[in-house]
Amino acid sequence: MTDLDSTSITAHAIQLNSSSPNPRLNSLLTSLISHLHSFARETNLTTDEWQAGIDYLTRTGKSCTPTRQEFILLSDILGLSTLITALNYPTPPLATEPTVLGPFHTDDAPPIPLGDSISSPSKAGEPCLFRCSVRTLSGSPIPGAKIDIWETDGSGRYDTQYEPRREPDCRGILESNEQGRFWFRCVKPVPYSIPADGPVGELLNALGRHPFRPAHIHFLITAEGYKTLVTALYVRGDPYEMSDAVFGVKRSLVVDFERVQDEEVLREFGLEKGAWGVEYDFVLVAEKEAEALRRAKVEEEDKRREELVEDLQKLDVD
Amino acid sequence: MTDLDSTSITAHAIQLNSSSPNPRLNSLLTSLISHLHSFARETNLTTDEWQAGIDYLTRTGKSCTPTRQEFILLSDILGLSTLITALNYPTPPLATEPTVLGPFHTDDAPPIPLGDSISSPSKAGEPCLFRCSVRTLSGSPIPGAKIDIWETDGSGRYDTQYEPRREPDCRGILESNEQGRFWFRCVKPVPYSIPADGPVGELLNALGRHPFRPAHIHFLITAEGYKTLVTALYVRGDPYEMSDAVFGVKRSLVVDFERVQDEEVLREFGLEKGAWGVEYDFVLVAEKEAEALRRAKVEEEDKRREELVEDLQKLDVD
Repeated sequence: MTDLDSTSITAHAIQLNSSSPNPRLNSLLTSLISHLHSFARETNLTTDEWQAGIDYLTRTGKSCTPTRQEFILLSDILGLSTLITALNYPTPPLATEPTVLGPFHTDDAPPIPLGDSISSPSKAGEPCLFRCSVRTLSGSPIPGAKIDIWETDGSGRYDTQYEPRREPDCRGILESNEQGRFWFRCVKPVPYSIPADGPVGELLNALGRHPFRPAHIHFLITAEGYKTLVTALYVRGDPYEMSDAVFGVKRSLVVDFERVQDEEVLREFGLEKGAWGVEYDFVLVAEKEAEALRRAKVEEEDKRREELVEDLQKLDVD
Repeated sequence: MTDLDSTSITAHAIQLNSSSPNPRLNSLLTSLISHLHSFARETNLTTDEWQAGIDYLTRTGKSCTPTRQEFILLSDILGLSTLITALNYPTPPLATEPTVLGPFHTDDAPPIPLGDSISSPSKAGEPCLFRCSVRTLSGSPIPGAKIDIWETDGSGRYDTQYEPRREPDCRGILESNEQGRFWFRCVKPVPYSIPADGPVGELLNALGRHPFRPAHIHFLITAEGYKTLVTALYVRGDPYEMSDAVFGVKRSLVVDFERVQDEEVLREFGLEKGAWGVEYDFVLVAEKEAEALRRAKVEEEDKRREELVEDLQKLDVD
C-alpha cells in the first residue's frame, strides 16, 4: 500500500483518475488534478480555507437559476471566460474579434424584421440605430446570416432580471439581406453592474473590485460555413472601459456612438433628432480556416509545453 | 488599453484580482487564477468542455443538501481532501495519522456513556467492541478528551442517507476517563459505496472507477491544548483497501478486527460469543508542536518553490 502523504497523493490520484477508455477525459483529469493540487500545495491551503471554498462553490451552484448563471459570472470575473474565448476563436487580423458570451444570452429572442426595434417602445433608454453588415475576410457580403442581439435596457437591466419576466425584451434575431446588410433600432447601451447580490458580488467586494461593465451590446452571428461569432460592441469613452468586471473589452470592439445628423436617415428610420447611430462591419472567418488556425495554435502550445518539460527534466529539482 | 488575448489575460486578471487589503486573499487568488488559466491553456479547453464544466459545477452545487455535501465528495475523489489533510496535519512518527473527514459528519451526535453502543439495538450489523485510549506523544493519558464517532450501519448507510432521518444513529460522543481510556460498542464497519447517484457518481462512472470505500469507522478527537485529530480506522483485508474511492486509507490506520475470545470481557460488556473486538491507542500532538511542524513544512515548501522559480528564471523559455 502506498502511504498517501502530501507528496505521493497527486500521482496516486492522477493514476486512479486517468484510466478511462476516453483519452481526452484522461488528459483533462490529469491536468485538472495536477493544477488543483499545485494550488493547494503552493498556498499551503488551510482546512478552514478549503472549507470556505467548498461552501463558496456550494452557494454559487445554489445561486444558479434558469435565468441566472452564477458559475459563468465567476468564470468571467476570473478572466477564464476571456481565455476560453481567445483559445477557441483565434482570429486573423481582419476578422471581427470575439468576446465573452456572458450569462444573459437566452434562446427565446424573437425574429425581428430589418429596421425594427429590439426594445419595446416603453423601455427606458436613448434611441439608437445600428447599420451593419456581415462580410467575409475578402469583403464579400454574407447574406442570410442569423444575428442574435441582446442588451440591457436604459436602466442597465436585462429582461431576465425583472420579476416576473413577461416576455423577451431588448433581444431580437435578424437576418442579413442579399447585400449582407442588417439594421435595427435599440436603446443606447449603458454601463451596468453584473449581479452583485450573490457569491460573485461577495468575492468582488472582498477583492475591493467594482462590479461594473462598460456599456455594450451583444451579437451572436451564425452563417453556414462560417465560424459562429460571439462578440459585443462597446461604447467608446465609457468610464469602465479599462476595468470591465468581466474582461470583455477589446480595442477593436470599441466603437463610436454619434448623433445621427443626416435628416434623410432620421426620416427613413422614423427617428427623432438626437438619436444615436453606429455603423459596423462584422467580418466572419470560414469554418475550415478557423479550425486550421485553432489546430495551429494547439500545436504551437503543445510544442512550447514539450520544450518546457524537456528543459525541466534537465533540472535537478525534487 | 491592453488587448486581452490568450497570453495577456492571465497577468491582467491576476492584477485586477490581487489588490485587496487582505494579502492572504491576494495570494490565494493569484495562485488560483494562474493554475485555472494554465489548466485551460495546457488542455486547450474547448468552449463545449468549458460549458460542460460550468454545468457540472452547477449540478454539483444543486446536489448539496443539509445532509449531503457533493462538493466535499468531489474534493475527495480528486485526492484534494487527502492533500489538504496532509498539509494541515503534519504528523510526527509516533502520532496517529489523520485522514479525510468525509461528507457525513454531523453536529448532532448524542453523548454516550463509556461502554454504551453508538448504534441503536435494531440496527443491522455484527456487534463490535472498541477498547481505546487517548495519549500524548510521550505516552501519558489524556483524560477528558471528547471523541466524536460515526459509521454506517451494517448495510453500509449513514443515518443521514435514510429518508426521513428520524434521529442520529451510529453516532456518539464519548469522553476519555482519568486513565485516558474510552470504550464503546458499535456494529463492525462494512465497505460501502459513496453516494453515486449524483454528479460525483457520474464522473466516477465516466472514469471507469468504482465508488466503494473500504470498511472504516470515523473518529474526531478534541482535547484542550492538542491539535484536533480527524481520523478513521480501517478493517484489515478489505477488498477496497488499495482502491478507496476517496483516498482515505493509510497503512497506520488499518487495524485487526478479531473475535473477542476472553469470556470475561464478553461478560463484562454484555456481548455474545462471536463479537468483534478492536484495541487502539490514539496519540495526539500538542497544539504548539503541531503548529511548529506546519510552519516548518510551509517554510520548506516556500524554499523549494523559490529554488524552482530561480531555476526557471535561468531558463530561456517562451
